[in-house]
Amino acid sequence: MTPRAWTVGVDFGGTNIKVGLVGPRGDVAATRVMETARLRRPDAFVDGVAGAAAALAASVGVPARALRGIGVGAPGPVDSERGIVNFLVNVPGWRRVPLARLLARRSGCRCVIDNDANLYALGEWRLGAGRGARHMIGLTLGTGVGGGILLDGRVYRGAAGAAGEIGHMRLTRGGPRCGCGQRGCFEAYVGTAAILRAGRRAMRPGGAIARLAARQGRLTPRVIGRAARAGDAAAREVWDGIGQWLGTGLASLLNVFNPDCVVIGGGVANNWSSFGPAMRRAVRAQAMSVAATSARIVRGRLGDRAGILGAAVLVWETE
Amino acid sequence: MTPRAWTVGVDFGGTNIKVGLVGPRGDVAATRVMETARLRRPDAFVDGVAGAAAALAASVGVPARALRGIGVGAPGPVDSERGIVNFLVNVPGWRRVPLARLLARRSGCRCVIDNDANLYALGEWRLGAGRGARHMIGLTLGTGVGGGILLDGRVYRGAAGAAGEIGHMRLTRGGPRCGCGQRGCFEAYVGTAAILRAGRRAMRPGGAIARLAARQGRLTPRVIGRAARAGDAAAREVWDGIGQWLGTGLASLLNVFNPDCVVIGGGVANNWSSFGPAMRRAVRAQAMSVAATSARIVRGRLGDRAGILGAAVLVWETE
Repeated sequence: MTPRAWTVGVDFGGTNIKVGLVGPRGDVAATRVMETARLRRPDAFVDGVAGAAAALAASVGVPARALRGIGVGAPGPVDSERGIVNFLVNVPGWRRVPLARLLARRSGCRCVIDNDANLYALGEWRLGAGRGARHMIGLTLGTGVGGGILLDGRVYRGAAGAAGEIGHMRLTRGGPRCGCGQRGCFEAYVGTAAILRAGRRAMRPGGAIARLAARQGRLTPRVIGRAARAGDAAAREVWDGIGQWLGTGLASLLNVFNPDCVVIGGGVANNWSSFGPAMRRAVRAQAMSVAATSARIVRGRLGDRAGILGAAVLVWETE
Repeated sequence: MTPRAWTVGVDFGGTNIKVGLVGPRGDVAATRVMETARLRRPDAFVDGVAGAAAALAASVGVPARALRGIGVGAPGPVDSERGIVNFLVNVPGWRRVPLARLLARRSGCRCVIDNDANLYALGEWRLGAGRGARHMIGLTLGTGVGGGILLDGRVYRGAAGAAGEIGHMRLTRGGPRCGCGQRGCFEAYVGTAAILRAGRRAMRPGGAIARLAARQGRLTPRVIGRAARAGDAAAREVWDGIGQWLGTGLASLLNVFNPDCVVIGGGVANNWSSFGPAMRRAVRAQAMSVAATSARIVRGRLGDRAGILGAAVLVWETE
C-alpha cells in the first residue's frame, strides 16, 4: 500500500474530537479521541488535531505530509469552498476561522472541511447505506435534526453554504417551540426534546418507562427506546408518534426533492425498529405516490464512525 | 437573421393552448391561441400544434423543419429526458404519451417537453427576473402552487422527474384540506381556495369586497385584490394573511435550499403590492438569517408570455 492511501478524518463534536486513520476502502485503522473542552480555542484545536494526525500516520510508518489529506466535519455553518468555519453552535470563540488553511500549514498536508451533516450524508453515500444513490438526503436525529443533501453525487450547499437546514423546515405558525426560537420546526417535533416531552407524558408510576428511568437516574430517549423494545405499550406509542412526525416531514422532503434514497442516522436512529413502521406508514399516506415509490428510506450503516468516514470521504471527493 | 434563429414555445393550459414564435433574444414575434377543449386528444393536439408552428414559421418565411425546435410545457408530470407526458391533471386521455417523439415526427423539427412549473422557472431565469441567479426557485401562484427548482442553472428534476412539488410541502397534520387529499399543504394556505375562503370571511354587506364581487358577479382573488388596492381594510387583511403564509412556506424553502433568488409569478402574483410586505416580514422573522439574506425574492417579469418563453428556453438549453 502506498503512503498516500491513508486519510485522516476528524469528527469535531461538542464533547469529543475523534480523529481516525482511514484506509482506501473506508476501514478505520486507528482512532484518537480528545476532549473538546481541552481544545476549544482554534489554535489549540489545530495543534491537537495536527498532532493526532501525525501520530496516527506515524503508527503506519508514514509522515503526516504523505497523507492524502485531513478532512474535518465541524458542528456549525462552514464555507467549505474557502475552508472557513463561520461559527460553531456549541463551541464559543470560533468566528470565521480559516481552519483548512491553518490546519494545512500546521500539518503539512491538504485539509478540507465541511459541516458535520453534509459529511454524514457524504459518508453514507460513498461507504454506507446510500451507496449507488443519485439524489440522496441524509438526516441525523439527535438533539437537533441535521440535514445533508447530495444531488448527482455532490453535496448541495446552496448560495452561501447554508442549504440543508432540514431541521428548520416548517409550514405552520403554531406547534412546539424550537431551539432556533421559532415554533413548529421539524426538529421541534422529532428532536430529543420532543421525545422526552412525549416520554414524560407517557410515564406512569410503576410502568416500564418510570422503572427504567429510575434505574438510569433520568429519562432519556434510550430509556424510552428500551421500554418500547421490552413491549411497553406507552413507550411504543411515544415512538409511534415520533415516527408519524418523521414521516410527515419526510413526505415534504420527498415531494420537493424526489430523491432515490434517504438515509437516517444519529443516536435516535438506534430506535429504528420502534419508530420505523409508523414513519413508513406516514410517508406512504402523505407523500405523492411517485415521490414515495422513488425513494428507499433506510437506516444509516456507519454508526459511530460516520463522522470520521464522512470527513475522509470529503478528502477523496475533492481530490 | 438565419432561419434557425426562430423557436416555437407552446404553453399547454387547461383552457387554452398558446403557441408562440420566439426570436433569439426572447422576443415573441407572433402567437396563435387554440382552445384546449378542441384539441384534447393527443393526436389532435399534435396536429394542431404542428400546424400552428408551421403557420408561424411560414409567417417569417421559413419551413417548420428550419426552426431551432419546438418546446412544450405541459400541466402535469413529465419525463422530460424521454419526452413523455406521464399524465395531465385536468386533461383526460393522456397516459404516458411520447409527446416529444410524436410532435417531432409530425413537425419535422426537434421537440422537447417539460412540466409547466419547471419551464416557468427556466424562462424567468434566462429571460426574466431570475437572470444571473445560481440557485433559483420559481413559484407560480394560482389554483395551485407550482414549483420549479434551478440549481447551478439547470432544472432539478429528482430521481423520477417528480421534484419541485413545493405546493405539497407540509409539516403539520391538521390545517386546511388540499386538493391532493392531504391537509395543511402550502397550496392549501395560499392557493385560490384559501384566498376565497379568507375573502368570504372578510366580506361585509356594503363593504368594498361585497360591492366589487356583486359587480363582477362572483368573488374572485382579483376582486379582493382590487378592494385592497382601493384601500379596503378587510381586503388588505386577507392579503396580509396570505402574505404571512407565503412567507412561512418561503422560510422553509430558504432554509432547505439557500437559493440566491426566488421568483414568484402566476395570476395571484398580480397582487404583489398587497401580499408582498407581509410576506417579506414573515421571511425575515422566520428564515435563518444567512438563508434570508442570501435570497432576493422578486416578482416574475414574463407575465402572460412566461409559458411560451419557458418552453422556448428549454429548446435552447437542450441544444
